[in-house]
Amino acid sequence: MNICAIYPGSFDPITNGHLDLILRGSKLFRRLIVAVAKNSIKRHFFSIVERVEMVKEAVKPYTDVEVVSFDCLLIDCVKKYKANVIIRGLRAVSDFEYELQMALVNRKQDASIETIFMMPDENHIYLSSSVVKELAQFGGAIDDMVPPCVAERLKGLFDKAAG
Amino acid sequence: MNICAIYPGSFDPITNGHLDLILRGSKLFRRLIVAVAKNSIKRHFFSIVERVEMVKEAVKPYTDVEVVSFDCLLIDCVKKYKANVIIRGLRAVSDFEYELQMALVNRKQDASIETIFMMPDENHIYLSSSVVKELAQFGGAIDDMVPPCVAERLKGLFDKAAG
Amino acid sequence: MNICAIYPGSFDPITNGHLDLILRGSKLFRRLIVAVAKNSIKRHFFSIVERVEMVKEAVKPYTDVEVVSFDCLLIDCVKKYKANVIIRGLRAVSDFEYELQMALVNRKQDASIETIFMMPDENHIYLSSSVVKELAQFGGAIDDMVPPCVAERLKGLFDKAAG
Amino acid sequence: MNICAIYPGSFDPITNGHLDLILRGSKLFRRLIVAVAKNSIKRHFFSIVERVEMVKEAVKPYTDVEVVSFDCLLIDCVKKYKANVIIRGLRAVSDFEYELQMALVNRKQDASIETIFMMPDENHIYLSSSVVKELAQFGGAIDDMVPPCVAERLKGLFDKAAG
Amino acid sequence: MNICAIYPGSFDPITNGHLDLILRGSKLFRRLIVAVAKNSIKRHFFSIVERVEMVKEAVKPYTDVEVVSFDCLLIDCVKKYKANVIIRGLRAVSDFEYELQMALVNRKQDASIETIFMMPDENHIYLSSSVVKELAQFGGAIDDMVPPCVAERLKGLFDKAAG
Amino acid sequence: MNICAIYPGSFDPITNGHLDLILRGSKLFRRLIVAVAKNSIKRHFFSIVERVEMVKEAVKPYTDVEVVSFDCLLIDCVKKYKANVIIRGLRAVSDFEYELQMALVNRKQDASIETIFMMPDENHIYLSSSVVKELAQFGGAIDDMVPPCVAERLKGLFDKAAG
Repeated sequence: MNICAIYPGSFDPITNGHLDLILRGSKLFRRLIVAVAKNSIKRHFFSIVERVEMVKEAVKPYTDVEVVSFDCLLIDCVKKYKANVIIRGLRAVSDFEYELQMALVNRKQDASIETIFMMPDENHIYLSSSVVKELAQFGGAIDDMVPPCVAERLKGLFDKAAG
Repeated sequence: MNICAIYPGSFDPITNGHLDLILRGSKLFRRLIVAVAKNSIKRHFFSIVERVEMVKEAVKPYTDVEVVSFDCLLIDCVKKYKANVIIRGLRAVSDFEYELQMALVNRKQDASIETIFMMPDENHIYLSSSVVKELAQFGGAIDDMVPPCVAERLKGLFDKAAG
Repeated sequence: MNICAIYPGSFDPITNGHLDLILRGSKLFRRLIVAVAKNSIKRHFFSIVERVEMVKEAVKPYTDVEVVSFDCLLIDCVKKYKANVIIRGLRAVSDFEYELQMALVNRKQDASIETIFMMPDENHIYLSSSVVKELAQFGGAIDDMVPPCVAERLKGLFDKAAG
Repeated sequence: MNICAIYPGSFDPITNGHLDLILRGSKLFRRLIVAVAKNSIKRHFFSIVERVEMVKEAVKPYTDVEVVSFDCLLIDCVKKYKANVIIRGLRAVSDFEYELQMALVNRKQDASIETIFMMPDENHIYLSSSVVKELAQFGGAIDDMVPPCVAERLKGLFDKAAG
Repeated sequence: MNICAIYPGSFDPITNGHLDLILRGSKLFRRLIVAVAKNSIKRHFFSIVERVEMVKEAVKPYTDVEVVSFDCLLIDCVKKYKANVIIRGLRAVSDFEYELQMALVNRKQDASIETIFMMPDENHIYLSSSVVKELAQFGGAIDDMVPPCVAERLKGLFDKAAG
Repeated sequence: MNICAIYPGSFDPITNGHLDLILRGSKLFRRLIVAVAKNSIKRHFFSIVERVEMVKEAVKPYTDVEVVSFDCLLIDCVKKYKANVIIRGLRAVSDFEYELQMALVNRKQDASIETIFMMPDENHIYLSSSVVKELAQFGGAIDDMVPPCVAERLKGLFDKAAG
């Protein structure tokens, strides 16, 4: 079966939790596309260009993983790349309800596209992009939480701000 | 990719919510095995033989769906059939926490086997095997909730009891 | 408008939390029926006769409140008494999901009957029939938790058992 | 009994989920007032005038439903219209906790006013005003989600923005 | 044992729920430090100076309670004051998930510092700083919700705004 | 301060998650008592004698930890040992609601006794006594989940049953 899966998100920035899910997803489907949402309404810490760069750098070791950006409805992005499955991570009950709602909304838009949920390693269960940014801002330890390229950028930014 | 998925459960009895998930799963993976748990500790309404019969009858229209029973750890059943993925349905927050726990436990037993979660159609979100049995017992309307073969058996049983 | 509401439950035994809800419900609807479920499957501490007696005793001060028992689907009980509304209490998230499911199931059985949810006083938010029984068994303080007639019965039973 | 109920909200914009609840509420109480919150702190997509206009247009078919706006504490609005009951919809666990908190707060302000919770049709369980706005912005299908007058306004706005 | 505990928060403004927890915490540990977060990113209603003043005024009756402010990672504040325990209040499920995440994050930063959770009196379970501010803005009754010094300041501010 | 804490439970059997909490608790309080509930109503897998034996064996390395059993209300056990604090572990939302209820109930019985909640290591977040028993029954890997003395007993029992 030629199933292609899309893993969408803001990735502001990508964390080891995201990477863990990308690896898990790439084992299940022939082709995995990481789709970075531009989302011009929500304010992001990193620009869309920077977010895509960091994801590309982080997934370099994984073959069969592509990285794209999108500035439209997720479901239109899924169709554009002829994907059949949306992958979403689930960590907490609060994630769960929002994810369920979005999966139902997407199903209404196109019933042929399925959303599946996967669980990151329990060591990443506390991880989120916002936690990482908050820690980085005050010089907290983030090396176990993000890929090296992200850790460097974050430190660079906040050192400059503090310096 | 030759991914084989297992959809385990008690199926006491199979409902239209289960069937909906079986159909969704069978579209994503080359092979889908519905695995009926014998589970001698938990008390069941239907015997393992009856539960397997009803599932087999209900999935007849779907090609590439097999039905088996198991009386061991789920993870050992998964290995026996050389499956790579466990499929579980998610409807409610209470499901979610139990399912997350079981997925982590199974990952501890064998890290190469992945659990994915899928969502039934919103019209089945209220459905569960226990609701169906409770309704059937008092002559409630269950025809939209279970496959015809299950509806018949349930009515037969309770008519006999009442008759 | 001649709306009649039903407040169903096991009432094994009735607590001050139930009473609080009965009072609140009776202010909203012309007629309020407290319906005690016989439910021969679930094991009860008090018999259906005792449970009805205690509810009747406890609601004596409230006019326009009737007490009945039922041994059928809730929805059939609602129709029998020509009620239009089912009242249920909500205290915790775990209540909430089960209640939502049952409300959807009942709506499937008869779309003209509405379920509404009400909240007991926050001083009763911890209260449940099982907590009361557990406390009573070991001589804990239950006088603020149940009507006097229930407190007496519980003490009588456990004193006899201990004596 | 002359119970008057208030159904408050932002209605930014009104969805078919809101309408479903208005219809359900209007069957239970002699008089139902839909109260649109001005709320000058929260940023709204539509102005208070537009939000009230759309609600009025949408509830036209329902007799005994009035539409008002308010710019004060909800409880003061309830008193102003001599209402006795606040109606709130419940869809998800996250709704539930916030709603419980607000119901307790309102009870502290005036113990004679009761909050009741109702459940929309399960086909609207995924629906929210923000989902509708996000879909509309990118040309997603919203015709099943909002009354015609809302769909038109949203399309008009976003076509103009895109044109 | 010379355990020193820190109770961190925004306290914008301090409520009777916070005070209840401070009193409970001060009974368990030799020394309790209330740490007011400056948090320059999040917008606050009261300045850090005002928030500290109100907390100091409110805890005056409690000996062995100190008040400090911090503008760094919580864990660095804990180390600075040689505390061993972080105290957090738990009221609702939504609190719970965020708190669990933050406790795990803090444990990653320093495994020797423990987070414990305590529960306020059930009469404060609905209380939050935002509820108080919203009520105060429209002249709602807040005297049972905050210490007198906070009630005065809030009334002063909003009277001035309205006057 | 001479605070003595009680950590109550069924411990049927004790897991590494329990042990982790015992160690964390013993660092915070001068004296920690592990209290094994006899609870003659709930059916246990191991007898009260066996459960106490296993806990005693498991906590041998920790000084200042005592092990007792009790067959009364928890609050009476707390008073008997002149403890001031009840420690409970929190892993999931479902735990949380039950624990909150029990803490409120205990506070009603004796307001001077405080319940605090602690979080086990995230590596034990999936662990429960029932999971361990289910795995052991079918020969699953449990060595990372329970102390050696428990693993041995469980294997002994199930080998005998299977042999």
